[in-house]
Amino acid sequence: MPELILDISMSLDGFVAGPNPTLEDPLGQGGEQLHEWVIGTKAWREAHGQEGGQEGVDSDLAAELVGQASATIMGRRMFSGGAGPWEEDPNADAWWGDNPPFHHSVFVLTHHEREPLELKGGTTFTFVTDGIESALEQARAAAGDGDIRLGGGADVAQQYLRAGLLDRVQLHVVPVLLGQGTRLFESNGGSLELARVGESPSGVVHLDYRRP
Amino acid sequence: MPELILDISMSLDGFVAGPNPTLEDPLGQGGEQLHEWVIGTKAWREAHGQEGGQEGVDSDLAAELVGQASATIMGRRMFSGGAGPWEEDPNADAWWGDNPPFHHSVFVLTHHEREPLELKGGTTFTFVTDGIESALEQARAAAGDGDIRLGGGADVAQQYLRAGLLDRVQLHVVPVLLGQGTRLFESNGGSLELARVGESPSGVVHLDYRRP
Repeated sequence: MPELILDISMSLDGFVAGPNPTLEDPLGQGGEQLHEWVIGTKAWREAHGQEGGQEGVDSDLAAELVGQASATIMGRRMFSGGAGPWEEDPNADAWWGDNPPFHHSVFVLTHHEREPLELKGGTTFTFVTDGIESALEQARAAAGDGDIRLGGGADVAQQYLRAGLLDRVQLHVVPVLLGQGTRLFESNGGSLELARVGESPSGVVHLDYRRP
Repeated sequence: MPELILDISMSLDGFVAGPNPTLEDPLGQGGEQLHEWVIGTKAWREAHGQEGGQEGVDSDLAAELVGQASATIMGRRMFSGGAGPWEEDPNADAWWGDNPPFHHSVFVLTHHEREPLELKGGTTFTFVTDGIESALEQARAAAGDGDIRLGGGADVAQQYLRAGLLDRVQLHVVPVLLGQGTRLFESNGGSLELARVGESPSGVVHLDYRRP
């Protein structure tokens, strides 16, 4: 059975974006630090037509993630960056360029109806206004036997988490404390058990940090 | 140089205790799940005079942690559990029993002055009313060349973190979402860089969970 996979980078203190996001700085203050690990890898750079980059664990995982999903679901702000909805901002499309890195169907959760947007390289953005379950259903149909990647942001991830629809959570915990911003896990009044893939019996991860 | 080490178990969503702590349930609802990994190990059980327990990664680490520090700093609630201060609760001492597992000097941050409490097995509780820096100074003097363990709770950990006094953070991330409770990292308006000990160049930890 294809899985709905949340794949997201988070600071050690639980933030997936820094405070005060703007159009120029959509990840908020300090938020770009959360993605440096992947942008610096050979695999990510290759997938984006760039040379160089680091090899190793991070790059191997980035390569795996690039090819993992056959459809993607994302929130409206992840589609148009820090920009407002497309009714308000004609540049909202420019965020992912004319050849986005998905190469499959992307379903964008939004309150604003819009015709699908077909771009180069096999990426089609479809705009879903009737909720997360509808988006998942459409993504499943598009993905066939493949998995579906939930790209974010935090709000969309929380909606799927609360609804019990996430099958897998791939978290990249970045060794930085942002102090403020958007939390992946807000207090939600619920609880959920998770099983860690392929590790010790307890599933506990032991992290060890020092001041640099 | 001896280090001040925070060693604490945290849920994946960032909580070190569950909601609504009481005298009977000082870790709050669901909070005991955070410590099951260590209580279930052979090393922890041996250190507490019990038989059995699991061997492996968790137990090896528990053994290392047991012998790691030469002094401990903790908050008042960690000393007396969910009970009130000793002025209000004559059972506040009973929390750690008459032979606590520290076997070294423990410095308790509190607003209530009190004479030191010497117990079996080499554990002495000293009560510090003049702040975190004084506690650290006294703990350094007691520890000699050894490290100092910061036991918690979250409030004390945050004070040391904000003051830039923590040298090392050992976090045990438990694969459970508590949804509510006491966060280790509250929004604090500051930011801090950390370096991960002995891992990939980026220091990022890649976690992978599934619904059980």
